[in-house]
Amino acid sequence: MNPEEIARFMLEHDEVAKWLKVELFEVEEGKAVVGMKVRKDMLNAAGVCQGGAIFSLADFAFAVASNSRGRLALAISANIYFISSAEEGEYLIACAKEVSVGRRLGVYEVEVREKETNRVVAKFTGEVYRKQEEVKV
Amino acid sequence: MNPEEIARFMLEHDEVAKWLKVELFEVEEGKAVVGMKVRKDMLNAAGVCQGGAIFSLADFAFAVASNSRGRLALAISANIYFISSAEEGEYLIACAKEVSVGRRLGVYEVEVREKETNRVVAKFTGEVYRKQEEVKV
Amino acid sequence: MNPEEIARFMLEHDEVAKWLKVELFEVEEGKAVVGMKVRKDMLNAAGVCQGGAIFSLADFAFAVASNSRGRLALAISANIYFISSAEEGEYLIACAKEVSVGRRLGVYEVEVREKETNRVVAKFTGEVYRKQEEVKV
Amino acid sequence: MNPEEIARFMLEHDEVAKWLKVELFEVEEGKAVVGMKVRKDMLNAAGVCQGGAIFSLADFAFAVASNSRGRLALAISANIYFISSAEEGEYLIACAKEVSVGRRLGVYEVEVREKETNRVVAKFTGEVYRKQEEVKV
Repeated sequence: MNPEEIARFMLEHDEVAKWLKVELFEVEEGKAVVGMKVRKDMLNAAGVCQGGAIFSLADFAFAVASNSRGRLALAISANIYFISSAEEGEYLIACAKEVSVGRRLGVYEVEVREKETNRVVAKFTGEVYRKQEEVKV
Repeated sequence: MNPEEIARFMLEHDEVAKWLKVELFEVEEGKAVVGMKVRKDMLNAAGVCQGGAIFSLADFAFAVASNSRGRLALAISANIYFISSAEEGEYLIACAKEVSVGRRLGVYEVEVREKETNRVVAKFTGEVYRKQEEVKV
Repeated sequence: MNPEEIARFMLEHDEVAKWLKVELFEVEEGKAVVGMKVRKDMLNAAGVCQGGAIFSLADFAFAVASNSRGRLALAISANIYFISSAEEGEYLIACAKEVSVGRRLGVYEVEVREKETNRVVAKFTGEVYRKQEEVKV
Repeated sequence: MNPEEIARFMLEHDEVAKWLKVELFEVEEGKAVVGMKVRKDMLNAAGVCQGGAIFSLADFAFAVASNSRGRLALAISANIYFISSAEEGEYLIACAKEVSVGRRLGVYEVEVREKETNRVVAKFTGEVYRKQEEVKV
């Protein structure tokens, strides 16, 4: 079971990621790059991409990166700075990388950027608790 | 335009909240209580409610509470601790309240609990930047 | 070894808390109230209490509350919102309480207020990893 | 008034940074590298460097980086992951860099590493509110 297989499995079984139509671009041990297009049905009352949708994209990149080594990893906390808003039709790329990984805990950072302009949309940091069991595929 | 009207408008125009079928229970200045049922299409690859869905519920309570005074408030950061997982069929209640509100910034905390058992599912804190303009309804 | 004894031991052996002259007001399982006076040698270049000093006070309340049950607890993350500044001569009270405690992890929230005016100075949330061993006193 | 002059001024007038004997290694617009040696009087009851001391070092790097452009910047929030502990005698380096800077807000990330081993000790993210006034030197 390699990082690529784990990522495919996670994408196929994560209903929110499927609803967002998240695409997988790159995955290796401790790293993941995913993206999604901002659709009309992701907007909030202010007419821009809802914070929860941006969080969910970053969170999914974080989940793939933290599970990529084969040990089941559960998110225990996350922190997000919303830096610029994203409009309908824009494409967001979330790039997650490992800050550290230990026996029980792992910390990851994720940057979300708009593809065309490359501007930063959000900065995310998160921690996982690493279970004893393997990721079940 | 009172807190109740603002909340109704936000719920009707927030596409993610509508997808989650968020229900509004209570709203007053600086406070909001909302809820949602965990559905099959909110689960992640581990078979429990996806973190992004829990975040989105808390974030919506935060948005309603922070816009309830009539000044447009944009989320600039949020922090979430995922404390226990939520299963399909469970009902989550998010209660947001104001920690502080100033001329430009406001801080809110949100507790997400499972309705039946009352166990804590997540603890969220977030900050908004308060624009000069009114919430447009 | 009760919460009070653990708290006394921690205060006597925490060099930063001693430098800040932190005072212990209340401690019970999962809860701690501590305070300190803002001194001239705690100010930053802007002439108000340095963020690190405010964080340290909140962090100490968090440490006492999370170790109060007798199991050694190590801080793994913390989040702080700086809400109002504190002036030289003011007295800050930090009140920590348990949001949740499990086999391995615990989440705590701390509110820092100025004693005289009761205004909120900071809002802190933190997580600990609970070791197998007891707090050594 | 250049970044170097601002940093020197901040170091000379920040009492906590002076107590920690923080050293300035590098500063440019939006960036700062500072360090300190872990002393006996920075340890906590568990015998390792106190979390508040590590936070204060990261926070100072954040303050220098965010004020380096000459506009007065006040910390409004910060998030820290404590990744490994630091022992007496070890030397910590905090490197702060700008994630984004706008008219009113700026987001910075700081990595704290131990100099000899290069292991990550903490990962910090923080946000500032940028005042209209200049940094007063």
